[in-house]
Amino acid sequence: MSKVTPISGFPEWLPSDRIVEQYFLDTIRETFELHGFASIETRAVEPIERLSSQGEDADKEIYAVRRLAAGADDDSGPGLGLHFDLTVPFARYVLENSGKLAFPFRRYQIQRVWRGERPQEGRFREFTQADIDIVGDGTLPFHYEVELPLVIADAFSKLPIPPFRIQVNNRQIPEGFYRGLGIEDVASVLRIVDKLDKIGPDKVTKLLVDAGLTDAQAKSALQLAEISSTDASFVEQVRALGVKHEILDEGLERLAAIMTAANEHAPGLLVADLKIARGLDYYTGTVYETQLIGHESYGSICSGGRYDSLASDGKTTYPGVGISIGVSRLLARLFSQGLVKGSRSTPTAVLVALNQEEDRADAMRTAAALRGRGIPTEVAPAAAKFGKQIKYADRRGIPFVWFAGENGAADSVKDIRSGEQVEADASTWAPAAQDLRPSIENPQENQ
Amino acid sequence: MSKVTPISGFPEWLPSDRIVEQYFLDTIRETFELHGFASIETRAVEPIERLSSQGEDADKEIYAVRRLAAGADDDSGPGLGLHFDLTVPFARYVLENSGKLAFPFRRYQIQRVWRGERPQEGRFREFTQADIDIVGDGTLPFHYEVELPLVIADAFSKLPIPPFRIQVNNRQIPEGFYRGLGIEDVASVLRIVDKLDKIGPDKVTKLLVDAGLTDAQAKSALQLAEISSTDASFVEQVRALGVKHEILDEGLERLAAIMTAANEHAPGLLVADLKIARGLDYYTGTVYETQLIGHESYGSICSGGRYDSLASDGKTTYPGVGISIGVSRLLARLFSQGLVKGSRSTPTAVLVALNQEEDRADAMRTAAALRGRGIPTEVAPAAAKFGKQIKYADRRGIPFVWFAGENGAADSVKDIRSGEQVEADASTWAPAAQDLRPSIENPQENQ
Repeated sequence: MSKVTPISGFPEWLPSDRIVEQYFLDTIRETFELHGFASIETRAVEPIERLSSQGEDADKEIYAVRRLAAGADDDSGPGLGLHFDLTVPFARYVLENSGKLAFPFRRYQIQRVWRGERPQEGRFREFTQADIDIVGDGTLPFHYEVELPLVIADAFSKLPIPPFRIQVNNRQIPEGFYRGLGIEDVASVLRIVDKLDKIGPDKVTKLLVDAGLTDAQAKSALQLAEISSTDASFVEQVRALGVKHEILDEGLERLAAIMTAANEHAPGLLVADLKIARGLDYYTGTVYETQLIGHESYGSICSGGRYDSLASDGKTTYPGVGISIGVSRLLARLFSQGLVKGSRSTPTAVLVALNQEEDRADAMRTAAALRGRGIPTEVAPAAAKFGKQIKYADRRGIPFVWFAGENGAADSVKDIRSGEQVEADASTWAPAAQDLRPSIENPQENQ
Repeated sequence: MSKVTPISGFPEWLPSDRIVEQYFLDTIRETFELHGFASIETRAVEPIERLSSQGEDADKEIYAVRRLAAGADDDSGPGLGLHFDLTVPFARYVLENSGKLAFPFRRYQIQRVWRGERPQEGRFREFTQADIDIVGDGTLPFHYEVELPLVIADAFSKLPIPPFRIQVNNRQIPEGFYRGLGIEDVASVLRIVDKLDKIGPDKVTKLLVDAGLTDAQAKSALQLAEISSTDASFVEQVRALGVKHEILDEGLERLAAIMTAANEHAPGLLVADLKIARGLDYYTGTVYETQLIGHESYGSICSGGRYDSLASDGKTTYPGVGISIGVSRLLARLFSQGLVKGSRSTPTAVLVALNQEEDRADAMRTAAALRGRGIPTEVAPAAAKFGKQIKYADRRGIPFVWFAGENGAADSVKDIRSGEQVEADASTWAPAAQDLRPSIENPQENQ
């Protein structure tokens, strides 16, 4: 057996960090449900041809899955791959179940996805995403493009994370703008401009010229990408560049409407940022990214957009809009920067101590009484000196140790942080609310 | 693009069934946490050599995973496969993190696993398990073998499932018994006897004789397998068969102790059933299975056991005991028998109706006020006749529709089941507690 080592790109958390992850996932789920999104989960695998039809970069990312002992009796059908996002599987789920779903269909989906990319800080090969999407049958009202970032903002406002900025663009703007400039290969130019934050304007200009643009075209494309505003004033900045195209007009109108509506409900939350493009090919209109303020170089931790033709069975098309929170990506940043930690490594609030092994049955009854009133409790692993049992609790951050009264005396419970010990009855005693469950702390605020 | 079809063995639920699954998972998690188990999750992949070292049948079940575009820059290291259970990955996690964990370590783990088996009723290729395990460093007290089935019983008692029976055995009993009979290849005989419920005593006898046992040995092995009791009286029945071996004595003593202790806390819950063996090779002592009463032929929905040597780094061994609830397997049975369903297909309790599109901003404020008090709310997708909006709610099982008051009149809310409509204020009104969230119903009890 080979040595046990981590596999690069496949993160695993220790119990106290997992408690933080659970808190984040619970909060996100609770918010999504408050906004009326129904949960679904899809299988981890899709036919490879469905995964690989999503753009030229997708092939590189796919993990193929095959039975190790697949032989003559292999009935697994077409080649299967692990899904690399939750949008492509969701579109397939909608097509497969369209007769059983009510449209517009609002769903959330929290699952792991896999991408065979080179691992680096915040980019994993296996990670958890939390998605919301709304799809219509045939049509999808525009107002959902305003609603989705407000849902994300509601979730983020409940999480212990740095301030954030949701950047929004409409792909029709660069597309119409490029066409107005006489550029044919819009997709390639989009992909190059998308690298602006990573490689800077000089390298982007060089790549654009290498791709066949004139110096003037490249300069204009860069000027467009550098426009941003927290209201609809970006429209005037674009107009000042003097490019005209009907697709551009439509994009500007739609993005302006989003900015106006968003400012009505959550002023300053959204930034119109015309360099945002998103790598995946299925987006057709509005696109979103999200930066943590002060962590801009880390890239987006929550992205999405509108896709008009991802789900189509030839007869009906199901246009959709969605946003995905990169939960693992977000947590990895918070952990690596020391911004969050769990207050203990176990849900246990009370350890029932054991004076002698013969008392175990009584201790189990005490524990059951506490659990029956919602207090997470475990019994000591072995009878031992009380100091050893307190050490067991202390190592795990368990705040209370319970002692059975001997010779008819009352039971007592000790807060091992303060040392305070009081008489207690398992049918009535309860810890303070903040000690009942592990809590999430920002270590830097406690210093 | 090929036609969209389900993939055999990879189940997906519709939203209302997913609500049932979430209820089950939440209840199981809550119970595990009340008993002081900490959550972890492990990556989906393990090195294939770690997976395939778990017995001769394991190879057939493993899904290998490989980057589709893996080429010269493939740095994924040893061949990877999807985990087929949560015990093998947990044992690896313990070895990898032993310096950072506190022992005995109590953990729960709720994740999907993958097995390339032939799909059939209740046997999937992708499914969700919910496991609890306790591991020690070097030693693990016996009392945890009593505790674990009590935790499972606590979880099951909170779920809307048929009555159940936890069957327990100790592998030392058949092993010692077979050795006492002069049988050498204990593992093969165990595997054959394990098929007793599936193929019946005649075929088991034939297989045993084919495997080299004498008629008398085969008969004795079957007689042992047919013994069961709800207390420690199985010991006398085994003694009456006249076989002697020190490993048998130890097994009998341990299983008797479990039955005695379990009867003290939950009389009748456990059945000592000497035919239980479990397929996986890593169990070394106590083993558990669980039947739903009235659904015995469906097989076990919750299984586990003690494993003394699964996790070892050469210096330290971490013995463990664990049980795994087959959540997908359990739910598939309940769904196919029509025993559970969700009361609606969405978390939404209130739909805010729209008289005209211009009212959307107001409707969004009403929805935000309701959500702020924990009431799941969505706004109608479009202004339409109220009948159409009520139909939207009805199709999803949303119980309440909210109407804005016009011309200064008060808002009102309609219970679309009873038709009752009352004046309401979004800052004070609340639905009845049972309508706030979807509930789980047994359709057969309502008939």
